[in-house]
Amino acid sequence: MNVRALVFDVFGTVVDWRSGVAREAARLLGPRVDAFDFADAWRGRYAPSMDRVRSGEIPWRPLDQLHRESLDELLPEFGLADLDEAARRELVLAWHRLDPWPDAVPGLRRLALGHVLAPLSNGNVALMVDLARRSGLPWDLVLGAEIVRHYKPDPEVYDAAPALLVLPPEEVLMVAAHAGDLAAARSRGLRTAYAHRPDEFGGRIAPPASDPDADLSVESFLELADRLGA
Amino acid sequence: MNVRALVFDVFGTVVDWRSGVAREAARLLGPRVDAFDFADAWRGRYAPSMDRVRSGEIPWRPLDQLHRESLDELLPEFGLADLDEAARRELVLAWHRLDPWPDAVPGLRRLALGHVLAPLSNGNVALMVDLARRSGLPWDLVLGAEIVRHYKPDPEVYDAAPALLVLPPEEVLMVAAHAGDLAAARSRGLRTAYAHRPDEFGGRIAPPASDPDADLSVESFLELADRLGA
Repeated sequence: MNVRALVFDVFGTVVDWRSGVAREAARLLGPRVDAFDFADAWRGRYAPSMDRVRSGEIPWRPLDQLHRESLDELLPEFGLADLDEAARRELVLAWHRLDPWPDAVPGLRRLALGHVLAPLSNGNVALMVDLARRSGLPWDLVLGAEIVRHYKPDPEVYDAAPALLVLPPEEVLMVAAHAGDLAAARSRGLRTAYAHRPDEFGGRIAPPASDPDADLSVESFLELADRLGA
Repeated sequence: MNVRALVFDVFGTVVDWRSGVAREAARLLGPRVDAFDFADAWRGRYAPSMDRVRSGEIPWRPLDQLHRESLDELLPEFGLADLDEAARRELVLAWHRLDPWPDAVPGLRRLALGHVLAPLSNGNVALMVDLARRSGLPWDLVLGAEIVRHYKPDPEVYDAAPALLVLPPEEVLMVAAHAGDLAAARSRGLRTAYAHRPDEFGGRIAPPASDPDADLSVESFLELADRLGA
């Protein structure tokens, strides 16, 4: 493989959304809810909310707004219909305050020496910038859904990465912990690397250890750096 | 001023396009041309080439392509109509290999501690990434013309910065060595800082020492960092 740029799924692949959202839910909602149940339920509305945009049912809107809309639906289910506006806004920002998996930053720093690195996430640009500044994720630029106003796995999101970087798709490697994301990237000509993140769902779901259709499967970004000679 | 993000014009403001293009022209064309005359003539076609896109005369295309088209027009004027394809491609990449002004990287590093930083240039995304990686420009993300497929001073370019960062325009400061760029940014609600770059045109044109309409005028990015308390 002659890979010049790496683009990354972020939620679950680079950062641990479940622990981070649960931490913020516990901080903001206190003992009124089980914070991990709350995180799981909120995340459960993620794909359906984007599918409404992808199908054309509702116009484009950034992920912060979808998170807010799904939060407003979710709160009554947790007996929190009375939560005030300030707390709702603060909760949406939980997604801007997620911690990376322990190998992510050291792996990315090695990979950055010889490769262009960018998130290719459904998270909006401001969210990606906040995550990066919080943890020192060494992105060269922010790519992803909001730049093209399409959500993954729409092909426009994947196509924009090689187009904006002026690279052939086969010189761009998509890294994700989700086989569906990689399959969509592969269908647009990108190379793919599966990152095994066994703790993404806190043990409730056990992700497969590897993706036989990917060019590479790795246990960490440090292994990814090894495999790419970085 | 409560400035959360700084966005920068790049050619002339962050990097010295004239010396860099002349260096590459000397390397690739040898003594057949005066390298500085060549750089000035090429840059002279910059604004007119973008105006053809802005007016709708030709469809959107990234700056690399406009640079190539203006190069092809320019070479016969310098007696170089016979220059081969490989050398033309390499010359276009001269714009990806420009050095920053000496104060730019140290100033940006200080500013990056407390502010989101992005280029807001007419240069395409790949060009911005190459400049940043070459010199260590600490951008958090790449904004600018190609993201919105409009060239400055079209309002879409300026409006996209606060929109994507989810900031009110008055919390975004545009930094440029050109009063016209700042005037367009100001008309969209951004704050403005004029950077005096007396050597941009190699002494052929003397830029004004300050811009009375800008919120700030500075002699360097280090002074900008001082003025913003960074």
